[in-house]
Amino acid sequence: MEELQEYFPFWNNLTAEQQNKLRGTAQKRHFAKGTMIHSGSDDCIGLLLVIRGQIRVYSLSNEGKELTLYRLFERDMCLFSASCILPSIQFDVMVSAEQDTTVFLVPAHLYKQLMEGSAAVANYTNELMATHFSDVMWLMDQILNKKLDSRLAAFLLEESELTSEPSLALTHEQIASHLGSIREVVTRMLKYFENEGLVKLGRKKITLINTEKLAALAQASRR
Amino acid sequence: MEELQEYFPFWNNLTAEQQNKLRGTAQKRHFAKGTMIHSGSDDCIGLLLVIRGQIRVYSLSNEGKELTLYRLFERDMCLFSASCILPSIQFDVMVSAEQDTTVFLVPAHLYKQLMEGSAAVANYTNELMATHFSDVMWLMDQILNKKLDSRLAAFLLEESELTSEPSLALTHEQIASHLGSIREVVTRMLKYFENEGLVKLGRKKITLINTEKLAALAQASRR
Repeated sequence: MEELQEYFPFWNNLTAEQQNKLRGTAQKRHFAKGTMIHSGSDDCIGLLLVIRGQIRVYSLSNEGKELTLYRLFERDMCLFSASCILPSIQFDVMVSAEQDTTVFLVPAHLYKQLMEGSAAVANYTNELMATHFSDVMWLMDQILNKKLDSRLAAFLLEESELTSEPSLALTHEQIASHLGSIREVVTRMLKYFENEGLVKLGRKKITLINTEKLAALAQASRR
Repeated sequence: MEELQEYFPFWNNLTAEQQNKLRGTAQKRHFAKGTMIHSGSDDCIGLLLVIRGQIRVYSLSNEGKELTLYRLFERDMCLFSASCILPSIQFDVMVSAEQDTTVFLVPAHLYKQLMEGSAAVANYTNELMATHFSDVMWLMDQILNKKLDSRLAAFLLEESELTSEPSLALTHEQIASHLGSIREVVTRMLKYFENEGLVKLGRKKITLINTEKLAALAQASRR
């Protein structure tokens, strides 16, 4: 069995009593691919720590429009499935298992106790929220300035046509200079593409996976 | 002189030593209307607590497009002017004084020390970030589903024309039912309008302040 202490980064900062409590209450849970894990704020299942699998966190507009905020993979922690412990969270997100997923589930009330009793846990939670906040700020910038994603998709398709290869031997730096952007921005966008299943990133190699979706993205820039 | 303990909600949870340190290092600072207080992540002036005045926090796209994220008023705390203490904050915001503003300034390194040493400070910071995160999620939903703001602006202008009055005697509940929305959503949008200087809210009364901007907003829904 996976050991809790390997998964919780703040484990060594907990008191023996806190460790015992966490050991006694954290449970392992499995969610089959497609399971809704959390939907909206009425639902406060607790904190999830991904052992294996893939989780999608998304918002749902009143009109039913989904927007992927970020994805969680091995060792990532899902805070918003325990949003009831943070009263200032005034928005709802949906959390679903995108692959068969195994997690440690820490009940919301216990995590709240740990946060209140341990600056290390509270600060870890802070960094976690800051990470997700950053993801959302990046996404908003993309939505407002929807250009680079389209331009990158168009560029990848053109290069692939040029070389007649589905795999491109290009560095992120090279792509950045093609697009008048910077390496960091291109890397982040490529990772987003990878998470969305559009490409697969390897060592100095980018493989196009879903050219149909890439073409749709590329098209968007011409509107 | 304003007393620190009246402004910092976590004051009573600090040790005497932490209180003394905060007393010894927090300074009062004045920013004239229009002053840039913080611009981007290279700049880590510290945590600001507004004593009086008005601060605008906004993002700036690569193309120079501004987007107001939220505003800070009396007793609000500005975390992102000390974003260097949270390594996971991977985005830049701009912070400017929208009115003559007086703040307590807590140097970044001291606030970091307090957060690390006090679960109360860390959890307060968490709630602060959750509040701003919520503001941004709301804003993103508005941007993606840009309808209610336009429809509300159009509705207010029409009502004002109908009654030939710049002040409307309408409850938020009544407006919500006109717009097929709910009271909470209308209240939040009206407060946003008020912050933007479009309307002034009073007891059972909404006064239109900037009909030109309202008309521009209302126009947007017809596109």
